[in-house]
Amino acid sequence: MAVDPSVLVEGVNNLWILVVTFLIFFMHAGFAMLEAGQVRAKNVANQLTKNLLTWSVGVSLFFIVGYGVSNLVAGFGFDPAFNLAPTDWIDWLFGAVFAMTAATIVSGAVAGRAKLRAYVTYTVALAAVIYPVVIGFTWTAEPGLVALVTGELFGTQIAFQDFAGGMIVHGMGGLAGLTAAWILGPRLGRFDERGVNVIPGHSMTFAVLGTLMLAFGWYGFNVGTQFEIFVTEGDGIAFMGEALGRVAMTTTLSMAAGAMGAGLVAWYKTGKVDTLYVANGLLAGLVGITAIPNTTAWWGAFVVGGLAGAQLPIVFAFVEKRLQIDDVCAVFPVHGSAGILGALAYPFVAAPGMLPDGAGIFEAFVAQILGVAVIAAWTILATGLIWRGLRAIGQARVSSGHERDGLDAAEHGVETYPEFGMGEERVMTDGAGLRSDGGVRNE
Amino acid sequence: MAVDPSVLVEGVNNLWILVVTFLIFFMHAGFAMLEAGQVRAKNVANQLTKNLLTWSVGVSLFFIVGYGVSNLVAGFGFDPAFNLAPTDWIDWLFGAVFAMTAATIVSGAVAGRAKLRAYVTYTVALAAVIYPVVIGFTWTAEPGLVALVTGELFGTQIAFQDFAGGMIVHGMGGLAGLTAAWILGPRLGRFDERGVNVIPGHSMTFAVLGTLMLAFGWYGFNVGTQFEIFVTEGDGIAFMGEALGRVAMTTTLSMAAGAMGAGLVAWYKTGKVDTLYVANGLLAGLVGITAIPNTTAWWGAFVVGGLAGAQLPIVFAFVEKRLQIDDVCAVFPVHGSAGILGALAYPFVAAPGMLPDGAGIFEAFVAQILGVAVIAAWTILATGLIWRGLRAIGQARVSSGHERDGLDAAEHGVETYPEFGMGEERVMTDGAGLRSDGGVRNE
Amino acid sequence: MAVDPSVLVEGVNNLWILVVTFLIFFMHAGFAMLEAGQVRAKNVANQLTKNLLTWSVGVSLFFIVGYGVSNLVAGFGFDPAFNLAPTDWIDWLFGAVFAMTAATIVSGAVAGRAKLRAYVTYTVALAAVIYPVVIGFTWTAEPGLVALVTGELFGTQIAFQDFAGGMIVHGMGGLAGLTAAWILGPRLGRFDERGVNVIPGHSMTFAVLGTLMLAFGWYGFNVGTQFEIFVTEGDGIAFMGEALGRVAMTTTLSMAAGAMGAGLVAWYKTGKVDTLYVANGLLAGLVGITAIPNTTAWWGAFVVGGLAGAQLPIVFAFVEKRLQIDDVCAVFPVHGSAGILGALAYPFVAAPGMLPDGAGIFEAFVAQILGVAVIAAWTILATGLIWRGLRAIGQARVSSGHERDGLDAAEHGVETYPEFGMGEERVMTDGAGLRSDGGVRNE
Repeated sequence: MAVDPSVLVEGVNNLWILVVTFLIFFMHAGFAMLEAGQVRAKNVANQLTKNLLTWSVGVSLFFIVGYGVSNLVAGFGFDPAFNLAPTDWIDWLFGAVFAMTAATIVSGAVAGRAKLRAYVTYTVALAAVIYPVVIGFTWTAEPGLVALVTGELFGTQIAFQDFAGGMIVHGMGGLAGLTAAWILGPRLGRFDERGVNVIPGHSMTFAVLGTLMLAFGWYGFNVGTQFEIFVTEGDGIAFMGEALGRVAMTTTLSMAAGAMGAGLVAWYKTGKVDTLYVANGLLAGLVGITAIPNTTAWWGAFVVGGLAGAQLPIVFAFVEKRLQIDDVCAVFPVHGSAGILGALAYPFVAAPGMLPDGAGIFEAFVAQILGVAVIAAWTILATGLIWRGLRAIGQARVSSGHERDGLDAAEHGVETYPEFGMGEERVMTDGAGLRSDGGVRNE
Repeated sequence: MAVDPSVLVEGVNNLWILVVTFLIFFMHAGFAMLEAGQVRAKNVANQLTKNLLTWSVGVSLFFIVGYGVSNLVAGFGFDPAFNLAPTDWIDWLFGAVFAMTAATIVSGAVAGRAKLRAYVTYTVALAAVIYPVVIGFTWTAEPGLVALVTGELFGTQIAFQDFAGGMIVHGMGGLAGLTAAWILGPRLGRFDERGVNVIPGHSMTFAVLGTLMLAFGWYGFNVGTQFEIFVTEGDGIAFMGEALGRVAMTTTLSMAAGAMGAGLVAWYKTGKVDTLYVANGLLAGLVGITAIPNTTAWWGAFVVGGLAGAQLPIVFAFVEKRLQIDDVCAVFPVHGSAGILGALAYPFVAAPGMLPDGAGIFEAFVAQILGVAVIAAWTILATGLIWRGLRAIGQARVSSGHERDGLDAAEHGVETYPEFGMGEERVMTDGAGLRSDGGVRNE
Repeated sequence: MAVDPSVLVEGVNNLWILVVTFLIFFMHAGFAMLEAGQVRAKNVANQLTKNLLTWSVGVSLFFIVGYGVSNLVAGFGFDPAFNLAPTDWIDWLFGAVFAMTAATIVSGAVAGRAKLRAYVTYTVALAAVIYPVVIGFTWTAEPGLVALVTGELFGTQIAFQDFAGGMIVHGMGGLAGLTAAWILGPRLGRFDERGVNVIPGHSMTFAVLGTLMLAFGWYGFNVGTQFEIFVTEGDGIAFMGEALGRVAMTTTLSMAAGAMGAGLVAWYKTGKVDTLYVANGLLAGLVGITAIPNTTAWWGAFVVGGLAGAQLPIVFAFVEKRLQIDDVCAVFPVHGSAGILGALAYPFVAAPGMLPDGAGIFEAFVAQILGVAVIAAWTILATGLIWRGLRAIGQARVSSGHERDGLDAAEHGVETYPEFGMGEERVMTDGAGLRSDGGVRNE
């Protein structure tokens, strides 16, 4: 009568991986609600369809092509998912839900004017190539590309640290979204000679519902990335409680600090606690910690989350007012800048003993800068190429007539709320009075 | 110091069973949202109440009567759930969430005109007898009824294969819904001398939310039906990773293919990608694989899911235009025909070595046909009997006045959205212009 | 090759604790939807913001102060959460999600007129002191305060039984909510010289969605409180299947009976099955069993759930008509009186052998009364003090102008549904005709 430790470890860890994979999959429901709530009623079904197709098209491509590409880039040859042993499909699915998170972030940035076929084309590229390349030189081939450079620089290989994808998934998605939104141009009436027009989403309730669904799934995302409950040790097993406990704690505190940080800045700026800033701040706090939940001190979780939340209203205003990019669902401040911030904060908020061997704060910081820079450069380049290509052939954006009518009617032939009497289209001039839909005016 | 393998296996498997049971329970929230979104605003609270009562009344009946009936039919005597040892209540609850899934499917077909008491009466019958009989000659008594017949036919007992209930739960529910909707008759104004009138649901957002919640729970439904993480083997344990991995992979790919298949057919037919078809196609893809996720090859998952999705718009149109049955939430194309398709596809899409001993494709196909036929015959018969009985005593359907006012006011005394100004009732003539609510016109 | 039983037990139990902790966290999404659905459209964003901040502010305070206070009260000195070993942060988070459940209940009672800063101030007090004191003399220091008294009374220490927080979390939250609502006073127009005015919530769909999300999370709450899957036994392990199975079964049946009980009473009183009563009855059934799911017989689960559901419409009417307290989301009948009922029912519905050693029904009942009384007295006292203090300095309640305009505009500067045409404000006179918003009339 004897239990083989390695079988025990494999089974329990895979049970855990399956459960957290389901939680991470559920984030698609969260993204769908968060984004649906932040778009106009006439574009809700379009946003929902994009979410459904992101998953469906994306996961199919990642199965047939993307997984193999990540292995190819990592130097293991093109080893596609359909050749895996059945047991390893658990790991493949665990990887796929991270890939699809990166993909779905983009849809929030290009809401309300991208053609469905353009979005699907980009999703194909992201799932088959863009994201697989990113993990190909990070997670799939640890210690990865950055360690080669730091080996040259410092004589010791210091890898880019991104535990659960704060930069690899969220930062990447946020930068891709910003790039696509920039090339696509703003929605009609979003900016005009009189300044910035706010086009409020149609339902705060769906937006906050999506926020809380995402936070639920995020526990799977972060704590589940500590995918080992047990490891074999000697001829027995060891419990990875320290790692699990730290990730659970830092994820919780950074999320909390993100909501408070964004709420406080909004309160300071306007005297009111904007609900959407609090919700998006909570998400920014989660994004901020996602690269480093396994190394950060408890006070560091408050710092990272607080900063990730606080930067949200500021970066959002910068993107909107200075760059005049129409990032509809604020995916850059939530996923992009917060993801970068967290990755770079790593050495400054780490608990004692949590830096890699041979690395001081400076060396670790350099490795983080290199990792962020490489991912950012590749993402912006590849995304820019595809959307510029789509724009060049006139397939990026719907006609202005379709945009005014709404994408639900034009692209899907449906009406999301056929019974609710819609008020007149309303666009708020930045802090000032109400005006009719700028979209009409700007024609 | 020694861990008993059988205690270890029992504990870890039951932990897993509890978690997936909770996920499957959550499908009630998914069904509630999916159905609420697809009915008129005046009938939403009615639909929600039916969902709440399906679970409440159904699970009580399944505890007191239904579980015992399934044992009785399987030849084990009437052994009710309240006599179980406490540990076995975990298994009972795992069975109960499948039973209640079958029950709740029906509510979507009879939306908008069934009396609450009629629906509750039918739920009592389904939970106490109809569904328990189905599992009594399949799951509860494996190898089950079909194996007796195939033993006579082929000299080797080939059982009906339905891993997670593609036919036993979903096909059964879909057929029951279609039968009930047929007997009940269509909603007022749904069909008239000028053809078919489309009565769109009140919220695409809730419908898609429900879709994604269901997909989340479905991972519990399918992967969780591989309820053994470990088995004892020799004097040790073995990990069931191959089975878990295959089910997780096929469930994912079939779901994806279902959404794409339905979307493509809709696009081909109308030039637009109807959101509701994509969502229901995703569900049909899930239903399609549910009988066979443990045996299907990766390419077979694409095939089954793709076909299950593609048949959806076609079967829906057939039910609507030819049969003129008012299956409000499309439960037959989503659960019925997709479930039958998946069960019958089994031998044609199986991975090598996945057919039962002694069975070729032909023998396995015959067993599947037999299983589908027996379940379909019993379901249609029993369901037909009850709804015809209810109709005969005038208790099946609300009065036309109540139907026009909406079931929320008539049956529940509530208004779902007391503050939202409702537009005028709108019914679309099949592909043509708008008209006032046919319900009024057809009186 | 040997697996250490204590490491195995620790790892598997912590995996389970993490999963159920995530489920319990998800109850915040459920509360947010339940409460949002039950308030006016003009106050939805305010309600959602309170939910987001309850979690964010509360969990931060519970980390820095509250956890230490509970240890201090239990006699272990002020031992704060940030000093824990990393592995123990799993347990801390498991405790924190219970604490935050108690906190969030209050927000439903004070909806529509409490100042955001007042609510946040109270949340700080609850998370840092009020709730930690309650667990300090119950869960943290078992057998706890009551056992000292029963030791004096009966010569044998009989502890207050509250397995998962039916009284400690829900009863406490319900009483706190009632106290706060009483001190705050009703919403404008809720009561006037002509009697009681019903102010219906803006969306039954969100309310029922929240109900089912809560029920999902509640499986984590109750079954997860049996946090031991395994225990070490001799030099091996034992599986806690009996406890897990009983809790899963009683939780299910009491939930079902609660929905049926409330629905039947509503039907008896009005001839209609009010959807919101069925939903809240389901929750009351869950609350009712939460103190005693591990000891109750199967028939007792039906009894407790049925009574908890049946008392809901009656207690709600009493609070509304006699006490004229405006408990907006019915948190007292759902969480307060149902929680007290369940705790007191303990000895009368216990399965054989489930009373503590040395306790008959009488002795056990006295212990329950003592526990309920102590928790109630402390909760009402502390809550009353804080809200009276806030009222005294004019910080408890928004101005009547802000209340009429809605808290979304006044406190958050947002509009939840900027596109949906809102009907005129509607207030129903108790059972009679419709009138314009009493809020205007009562000025």
